[in-house]
Amino acid sequence: MSADATAAVEDALRRAERVEPEIRAWVRLDAEGARTAARQAPDGPLHGLPFGVKDIIDVAGLPTECGSSLRRGHIATQDAWLVERLRQAGAVPLGKTVTTEFAYFRPGPTRNPHNTAHTPGGSSSGSAAAVAAGVVPLALGSQTAGSLTRPASFCGVAGYVAPAGVWPTRGFTGLSPSLDAPGLLTAHVAGLAAVIEAVDGTTPEELPRPPRVVVWSGTDLADIDPAMSDALRTTARALGADAPDTSLRLEAVARPPELASAHTVVMAYEAARALADEARCPEALSGHLNDLLDRGRATSDDEYRTALATARDARVAVLELLDDVDVILGPAAPGPAPHGLDVTGTPVLSRPWQLLGLPVVTVPGHRAPEGMPLGLQLIGHPGRVGRLIGLARLAEESAR
Amino acid sequence: MSADATAAVEDALRRAERVEPEIRAWVRLDAEGARTAARQAPDGPLHGLPFGVKDIIDVAGLPTECGSSLRRGHIATQDAWLVERLRQAGAVPLGKTVTTEFAYFRPGPTRNPHNTAHTPGGSSSGSAAAVAAGVVPLALGSQTAGSLTRPASFCGVAGYVAPAGVWPTRGFTGLSPSLDAPGLLTAHVAGLAAVIEAVDGTTPEELPRPPRVVVWSGTDLADIDPAMSDALRTTARALGADAPDTSLRLEAVARPPELASAHTVVMAYEAARALADEARCPEALSGHLNDLLDRGRATSDDEYRTALATARDARVAVLELLDDVDVILGPAAPGPAPHGLDVTGTPVLSRPWQLLGLPVVTVPGHRAPEGMPLGLQLIGHPGRVGRLIGLARLAEESAR
Repeated sequence: MSADATAAVEDALRRAERVEPEIRAWVRLDAEGARTAARQAPDGPLHGLPFGVKDIIDVAGLPTECGSSLRRGHIATQDAWLVERLRQAGAVPLGKTVTTEFAYFRPGPTRNPHNTAHTPGGSSSGSAAAVAAGVVPLALGSQTAGSLTRPASFCGVAGYVAPAGVWPTRGFTGLSPSLDAPGLLTAHVAGLAAVIEAVDGTTPEELPRPPRVVVWSGTDLADIDPAMSDALRTTARALGADAPDTSLRLEAVARPPELASAHTVVMAYEAARALADEARCPEALSGHLNDLLDRGRATSDDEYRTALATARDARVAVLELLDDVDVILGPAAPGPAPHGLDVTGTPVLSRPWQLLGLPVVTVPGHRAPEGMPLGLQLIGHPGRVGRLIGLARLAEESAR
Repeated sequence: MSADATAAVEDALRRAERVEPEIRAWVRLDAEGARTAARQAPDGPLHGLPFGVKDIIDVAGLPTECGSSLRRGHIATQDAWLVERLRQAGAVPLGKTVTTEFAYFRPGPTRNPHNTAHTPGGSSSGSAAAVAAGVVPLALGSQTAGSLTRPASFCGVAGYVAPAGVWPTRGFTGLSPSLDAPGLLTAHVAGLAAVIEAVDGTTPEELPRPPRVVVWSGTDLADIDPAMSDALRTTARALGADAPDTSLRLEAVARPPELASAHTVVMAYEAARALADEARCPEALSGHLNDLLDRGRATSDDEYRTALATARDARVAVLELLDDVDVILGPAAPGPAPHGLDVTGTPVLSRPWQLLGLPVVTVPGHRAPEGMPLGLQLIGHPGRVGRLIGLARLAEESAR
């Protein structure tokens, strides 16, 4: 057992050494810790699998620095719940990956492995890039707005955002407790399926044929790149959803622009409270984060309650819709990763679904004409993750 | 008289010759036509002022090619209304400036004079760049979504979008008749004031002090760059609007995300009808434009009527608000011009106001840390353009 685990860890460390100078996905590679963990790894379903951990998630004995000078050297004393579960399944943490500042917008140094002049997206920047560069088969991320779905799309990897309240966020540095969710990044959907099963026993489900798909074009929230619209049409057709845009059923119960707007209210209000201590050192924070905290402090309790009520009503309505259809299929981002390392792209296409606490799988495989990856997102019912994973496999096949 | 006009035209042609190889703002410089027009220019308030004309606007005797191979060589037989008015005031058309394809997204070759690796914005790309590069003191543009406000912001020039129905669009190739509006680009607000007065007699108004300003942060529609938020705060303070975000009064009567969403419905529906002939040659159109036309054809009459009703109700409510306050002040774009020439940035911050048919002035003068321009937009009452211009002057002073 341990020979395999040790070999897997040494392989990952060698790959990291080769690509890291260019990609800069890691805050800290814990070679010694990983070697020890490999020797002691239990014989679980993920035995010897090395994984990266976004640097807002605690790994016992390592610092959790959250991409901020305010947290430099803060050593975690305990593993986060998800890290603990993965260790129990035999997996081995290889180190901490780059996050944007407190999982908001200010980027770290990470570059997109598909073209290093482009952002990998954020906030789970290093986790997405480390998987895309082939250093680790699995990395942990989190999503409050579009922090996992967007980098998965930009880096051409598979992503999973757990539904609200199902996987504990113990050991995660939070930004907005109503919205924060743990998640996974792997090279393909099959990897997600294996890890989800190891974590909570969910197995991919046999599917009704043809699946019932609501196709959401995303155009009411962003200017969608034509290559992304093409990818969406191709996959919609492959899944047997004929209509070019069947989102009328969605629009009838919930309007994504309204949900995106309510999401920003909830996030600002809660972030101002979650980071109240940090807000006392505005000079140590980025302008983007200061703006969020300012906005959150200026948000009234009434506004916040109204936004939560919007979320609650829309959740009821969308869950009813998801009793009747299997999945909402849409673009994971407006287009390929933008050029430049000072931006991380927009999370706007994730805000509505994150507000509702729904599970989301990002499916890789499509490409823009210039070769950059394009991801699609499948949004499902929180009680039927197995079906969501099954459909994501089908969607992934359609992109090949 | 004519000596001055001729000298001004020769100057502009020399400046064009110098910067055009790098900036590529013009589809066609009409040196001979401009020389003749200069000799014959009447002695009006704009005597001898050379101006650029966006290539969706007719100038008699020149082609109007709309950035599309489908219109190559289509010679206009008559001046557009606005060109005619400017000629009567003594101004001289120098040629046609680059537009995106049918004033939608696909860019032409124009580069941003502040940094040629960045987009000038669109669709009035060449007009904004020609003014920013100092080739002409005035250029004509148009706006259906954010086609004038955004390039003005990205290129650091002043922009004016006329209120719906006040300046005729005769001689403009339309995209969406309910939304299309003519407009102007000049180096400073003072230039706008002079041209507007020459066109329709409006004069800048004495202002109540302090002016009553609603500050709209834009954050419910886009991720606003911190430098843009700073610019907004600076100008809001300078105008005497103390609160960081006084948009609650606006939110109480109209929600910008809902308006932006209704705007996209109206635009798609009307564009599919305005360009029905062109839609028969999809292979000659860009993916972006085909997507818009597809979406427009898939939009039901009911959806369209609902969107128009949203616009009508919100217009009534916002006009009432604008009886009580002087202006809505907000960011003209989410941040500085994006890197790259294959994108033109997002018009999302203009959609709500364009749906309502309100006059908009873009005010230049702020800068992002790396030096690129940032514009603010002032949105006013259609019956009080003089007051809007007066306030825009004040706002411009605050940015110096």
